[in-house]
Amino acid sequence: MEIVMQPFPLDQAFTLLEPGPVTLVTTHDGEHDNVMTISWTMVLDFDARFAITTGPWNYSWNAIRKTRECVIAIPSSEMLDTVVGIGLCSGGDTDKFKKFGLVRRKASKVDAPLLDECLANIECRVVEIIESYGIVILEGMAAHVSPHRKGKSLLHAVGDGTFTTDGTTLDRRMMMRPKLPSSVIQP
Amino acid sequence: MEIVMQPFPLDQAFTLLEPGPVTLVTTHDGEHDNVMTISWTMVLDFDARFAITTGPWNYSWNAIRKTRECVIAIPSSEMLDTVVGIGLCSGGDTDKFKKFGLVRRKASKVDAPLLDECLANIECRVVEIIESYGIVILEGMAAHVSPHRKGKSLLHAVGDGTFTTDGTTLDRRMMMRPKLPSSVIQP
Repeated sequence: MEIVMQPFPLDQAFTLLEPGPVTLVTTHDGEHDNVMTISWTMVLDFDARFAITTGPWNYSWNAIRKTRECVIAIPSSEMLDTVVGIGLCSGGDTDKFKKFGLVRRKASKVDAPLLDECLANIECRVVEIIESYGIVILEGMAAHVSPHRKGKSLLHAVGDGTFTTDGTTLDRRMMMRPKLPSSVIQP
Repeated sequence: MEIVMQPFPLDQAFTLLEPGPVTLVTTHDGEHDNVMTISWTMVLDFDARFAITTGPWNYSWNAIRKTRECVIAIPSSEMLDTVVGIGLCSGGDTDKFKKFGLVRRKASKVDAPLLDECLANIECRVVEIIESYGIVILEGMAAHVSPHRKGKSLLHAVGDGTFTTDGTTLDRRMMMRPKLPSSVIQP
C-alpha cells in the first residue's frame, strides 16, 4: 500500500502554518464530512496551538461548534483551482469531496478526514471558541506531511482574488539559533 | 519633498496581511519608540480588524497594553536581515531604529511610528487583549503603502529560521468575484 502521509512532530507543526498559507479545514458533523477554505489562521504557540477565524455564515461553523474538532490541511499551489472552488460553494448543498475529486484518509485522533493531496494535515481539537470575534482556538493532536512535499510551493491568498506562490527560500537558521525553539534546531 | 507613503483604503487593508507576511510592529511607550518582529498575525474581518499574538516576554507588550496602539509595518523580502536582527535583540537595551538604520515617519492617528522602508504600514488601536492566549485584537485606523511596492516581494517566516519570498502571482479575480467584498472588486 502506498504511503501517502508521514507522521510529523507536533512540536514542529507551527512551521506548517507560520508562513501564512491558505488552508483547507475539514470537519465531520456526525453524518457528513465537509471542507472549507480558510486563509485567516495564526500560530498561537510553538506547542501546537493555533487560531482560525470563521463564523456562522460558514456551513462548517456548526460542525466545529458541535464536534469541537477539525483538520487543518495545507494545499500546494498546484491545488489553486480546488482551493478557490471549495470557497465558492457550500457544504449545505454540495459534496465538495466528490465535486473536486478529493481523496480522504482516516485521521488518528479526530473524525474529520485528512486530505491526501495536501502537503500537510494537522488534526485539531477545539480549546475554546471566542464567539465575539469568530476566533476558534485549536490544539494540534497529530500532524502528518506528504512524502512528496519537498520542492512544492505553498499558496498565499491576497484576499482580492489573487494568490502568490512561494518563491526563493532564504536560510537564517544559524543567525536565529538563539531564539528558535529546540524542536526546530537542527543538530 | 519625496512622497514616501501613499494613503491606502482601510477597507482593503486586510489584503496587506491576508497573504501571511512577517511584520514589524512599532510601539511608542510614552517616551521611546520600539519595534518587534511578529509573524503570528491574522485577519479577523474585511473591515480592517486584525489579531496579533505576543506576550509578556516581549518588551513591546507593556507599551501595547499601556498605550493601546501600534503600527503593523510590512517589510519587503529585501529587509530580511533587518527583520531577523530586530527579532534577535530587545528594545530594553537597544535602540533598534538606530541599530538597523530604520527611518521613521509620524503616523496620523497613533503615536507609534511608520517605517519608511516598509511596503505598507497600518496604524492600529487595540480593541481588546485576550490575555490567556496573548491575542491582541486590533482595529485599523489608517493605512499607507509605499509607491515603490509594485514588484516587491513579501517575506514569509517558516519559523525554523528559514523564510520564503513570494514567487508567481496567480489571478482568480473573475472566478472569485461573487465572494469578494466590494472594496476589492475592480470595476
